[in-house]
Amino acid sequence: MSQNREKLIDLLEDIVGNKWVIIEREFQSSYLKDETPLPMLPSAANDLILVKPFSTKQVSKILEIANKEKITVFPVGGRTGLVGGSVPTESGIILSLERMNNIEFDKENSMAIVEAGTTLGSFIEVSKRAGFFFPLHPGDEGAQIGGLISTNAGGVRAIKYGVMRNYVYGLEVVLPTGEILNLGGKLLKNNTGYNLMQLIIGSEGTLCVITRAVIKLYPECRYSSTMIVPFGNRYNAILSVNKILRSGIIPLGVEYIELRDINKAAKHINERWPVQEGNFQLLILLNATTDNELLFAYEKISEILPEYNPNDYFLAETNKEEEMILRIRSSLYTSMKSRIIDILDLTVPSNHLLDLISAVEKTAFKNHIDLPIYGHVGDGNLHVHILKEENTNQKKIEKIKKELYKVASNLGGVPTGEHGIGKIRTEEIKKALSEKEMYLMSKIKENFDPNNILNPGKILS
Amino acid sequence: MSQNREKLIDLLEDIVGNKWVIIEREFQSSYLKDETPLPMLPSAANDLILVKPFSTKQVSKILEIANKEKITVFPVGGRTGLVGGSVPTESGIILSLERMNNIEFDKENSMAIVEAGTTLGSFIEVSKRAGFFFPLHPGDEGAQIGGLISTNAGGVRAIKYGVMRNYVYGLEVVLPTGEILNLGGKLLKNNTGYNLMQLIIGSEGTLCVITRAVIKLYPECRYSSTMIVPFGNRYNAILSVNKILRSGIIPLGVEYIELRDINKAAKHINERWPVQEGNFQLLILLNATTDNELLFAYEKISEILPEYNPNDYFLAETNKEEEMILRIRSSLYTSMKSRIIDILDLTVPSNHLLDLISAVEKTAFKNHIDLPIYGHVGDGNLHVHILKEENTNQKKIEKIKKELYKVASNLGGVPTGEHGIGKIRTEEIKKALSEKEMYLMSKIKENFDPNNILNPGKILS
Repeated sequence: MSQNREKLIDLLEDIVGNKWVIIEREFQSSYLKDETPLPMLPSAANDLILVKPFSTKQVSKILEIANKEKITVFPVGGRTGLVGGSVPTESGIILSLERMNNIEFDKENSMAIVEAGTTLGSFIEVSKRAGFFFPLHPGDEGAQIGGLISTNAGGVRAIKYGVMRNYVYGLEVVLPTGEILNLGGKLLKNNTGYNLMQLIIGSEGTLCVITRAVIKLYPECRYSSTMIVPFGNRYNAILSVNKILRSGIIPLGVEYIELRDINKAAKHINERWPVQEGNFQLLILLNATTDNELLFAYEKISEILPEYNPNDYFLAETNKEEEMILRIRSSLYTSMKSRIIDILDLTVPSNHLLDLISAVEKTAFKNHIDLPIYGHVGDGNLHVHILKEENTNQKKIEKIKKELYKVASNLGGVPTGEHGIGKIRTEEIKKALSEKEMYLMSKIKENFDPNNILNPGKILS
Repeated sequence: MSQNREKLIDLLEDIVGNKWVIIEREFQSSYLKDETPLPMLPSAANDLILVKPFSTKQVSKILEIANKEKITVFPVGGRTGLVGGSVPTESGIILSLERMNNIEFDKENSMAIVEAGTTLGSFIEVSKRAGFFFPLHPGDEGAQIGGLISTNAGGVRAIKYGVMRNYVYGLEVVLPTGEILNLGGKLLKNNTGYNLMQLIIGSEGTLCVITRAVIKLYPECRYSSTMIVPFGNRYNAILSVNKILRSGIIPLGVEYIELRDINKAAKHINERWPVQEGNFQLLILLNATTDNELLFAYEKISEILPEYNPNDYFLAETNKEEEMILRIRSSLYTSMKSRIIDILDLTVPSNHLLDLISAVEKTAFKNHIDLPIYGHVGDGNLHVHILKEENTNQKKIEKIKKELYKVASNLGGVPTGEHGIGKIRTEEIKKALSEKEMYLMSKIKENFDPNNILNPGKILS
C-alpha cells in the first residue's frame, strides 16, 4: 500500500473530512488490539489508516475505493473481542463506525433502529429511558452494536431471550463493492428468499460492513432478582442447573463462578463479594412482569436446590446490590487478564457440562497446573483459562488446548459458543467443521467479497 | 429422462427396495399437488418416480445418482404448502421422507432429535406424552418436520416462542452431491463459522434435503387460556393488538378473524363458533406456568380492551372448548379453499396493519369484489383472499395483486411472511429484493447445487 498511501489518504479525506482520517500511529493505538489475552493477541500491521465515517454513504464510498484498489479493510467495533477478530493484521484501512451512533425508537413496534457504532452501554441506557429493556449483556459495555451482531454475541443473559441473532430483524449492510443492502425490516415474519441476514449475523466482518440494524426490544420488567447459591462442590452446583432449567421457569441467566476468582474480581474493582462460604457458586438472574411470577420462580428454585445440598441462598435486596454483583461478575475476565495466556470458549450440550468439567480437572491435575473455569452454565458455555505459570511452556499449552478441544468435540460440542473464530481460532474451525462446510463457507466469502478485502485472516479469508 | 427411466428405476429399487419406488401415476396422485388454491397450482410433470427412502444413507445414495445423471429431485414433506413449493413440475424423482419419522427425546437438554418425515401432529402428540410442549402450530398437522424447517413455518403461535427458525439447533442434511452435513447440535450457543444452518432454514428444499433436526422443546405449560373478543369494527380490533403486545404480556398468538368467515369454517366441520356478536374478532391465545401468571395476563388485557370498545369477552372454559375453537380456526382456509383463487401472505410492520387493511378495503371497493382477510395480526402477517366471483378475470386479479403487493412494500412489508416463494411467487421475490440480493442468493444456490437438480422453479433455481 505504501507507495499509494498519500493518494489514498487524499481520497479518504475527501469522503470523511481530514479530521476523521487518522494516520498517526500514536492516535491509532487503541485500534490496534482488542481484549484478547496478550500472549494470544495478533500483531497489528505497520501501515494503517484509521477512518471514521459518519454515514452509510461514506462507508460505501470508502469500500468502493478499497475494493477497486484491493486495499484491505478492517471493520472494528468496540474492540472488546477475545479472539483478535478486529485486529488489523495487514496494511490497509481500519474502519471505525463509532461516529455512527444514532438510536431511533419505534415504540409501536417495540423496535429500535440503531447505527452500528452505538455502544452497548449507551443502547441499554437510552432504551431504558425510552421504557424498553434490551436483555442481552455480553460483558463489556464498550462493545458496539455492529460488533455484537457480526460476532453474534451471547453472554450472561442469553437463556430467556436468546443470543444477538434473536434480536435482529433488519440489517443495513455495505458490501465490499460499496453496494448497500437492506435486509429484513420491522417484520416479525419474513420468508422472502434465502435469509442473507441470518448468514451475515456471526460472520465476523468478513462478508460486509454492518451499518444499521433493526433490534427487537422488550417491555421493561418491573421485577428482577439476583440469587447467589454457594455449594461445597462443583458437581452439585452444575447438576442443579439442568434441573432448574427443566422446571418450567426460564431464568435470564445462570452463571457458574468460583469463590477465589470472584473475590479477586471484587478486589479488582474495590468491592466485596457478598457470599463468602461455598467455593462453587451459581449466580441466578431472574426477571418477571409481576411479583407473583418472580416469587413463583424463586419458590421453584428453592424447592429444587435442597436436593443438591447448597450451603445457603443469598438474594440481593436492592437494585444497587444487584448492580454491584453484576459489576463484579463482569470484572472476572479483566481481573484475571494479566495472568491469562488464553481463554477458551468451550460449549457442549448442557447435560455434558459435568463431563467437560471433569475432563478439565483431569487435564489440570495431569499437567500440574491450574485451569480456572467459570461461565454461562445455563447455555452449556464454559470459559476455561490457561494461566501464566512457572511450569508452562508453549508446547504444554498447545497440548492442553488440543486435549480440551477434543473433549468438547467428543461430547458433541464446539470450540466456540460465543467468542467466535477471529484470527486465533482458524485451526480450530478447520478441525471442528467438515471440508465441505469449509468449502461452502469459502464460496460464500468469495461471492460477497471477490477481492478478499474484508478482514482477512478471519474465518475463511 | 424417459430413455433411462427403466435403468433409473432399477438403481432406485436397489437402494430402497422395489416396494418403495412407486412408478404408477395413480399411486402418485397425492404427491403431485399441495394445498395451493387450484387456480394457482402448478401442473405436475408426467414422467415422475416417487421414492421413499428409509435412512439418510439411502437419501444420500439417491441424490448421488440424481446428481451424476442430472436428474431433477423434488423433496416433499406433507404437501401442505400454499405456493406450489413441493409440486414436481419437471420430470424426475419425487423424494418423500415419510418413512423417516423417528423421534428421540433428550430430556436433560429439553430437545428432540426428529427425522424429517415426522408429521407435526405426531410430533406434538408424542412430545406431550413425553412431558414437553412444542408451541408452533402452522395449521395443517399433516405438515412434516422437514417441510416446516425448509419453509421456516410460522402460523398462529409464533409470537411468544418465534417461528420454526427459533426452534432448530441442529440439522442433518444431504447435499445434492450426496454428501451428508451435520450442522449445529444440542448447543444453545454456537459461533463456529458462518451459520449454514440458518441459511438452510427457509431455503425451501433448493439447497439440500433435510433428513433430521435437533428441535428445542419447552416444559408443558399447565395453564392456558383462549379468549375471543368481538368488535363492531375492524379498526378497533386491530388497534387494540399493538397496545396488548406493548403491555408486558406475551401471548402465544393473536389472530384476527371475521364472523362470517369463521362461521363458514365452523359449519364446514359441523361445529358452532361460540361468539355470534361482533363481526370483527380477535382470538387471543395465552399460556402460563402458573394460574397467577395467566390471571395477570387476562387482567391486563381486560384493562386495555375497554378503550377499544369490544362487544364482549369470551373465555373458553374447558380444554375441549379450546380445542374446538382452534380446530375451527384451523379450518378457515380449507372451508374457503374451493372458492379461493389465491391467498396472499402480506406482512408489514405491526403498526402498519391498519394501513394495509384500509388499502385492502379500498381495493375491494374499487374493484367491486370481496377480499376476505384474516391472519396473524400479532405478527403483522395478514392473509388476503381473492375469491372466484362472476366479475373477476385474470387481468383484474393480476391488477389487484400488484396493487396489494405494492401497498405492502410501501409500508415496509414483504410479499410473504410465512408461505414462502415456492413456484408461484417467483416474480414477487424479484420485485421485493434487489438485484444484488438475487445475485448472492443465486450464487449460494450454485455452490450448494452445481447441477441445479434440487427443486427447480423455486426461489432461485
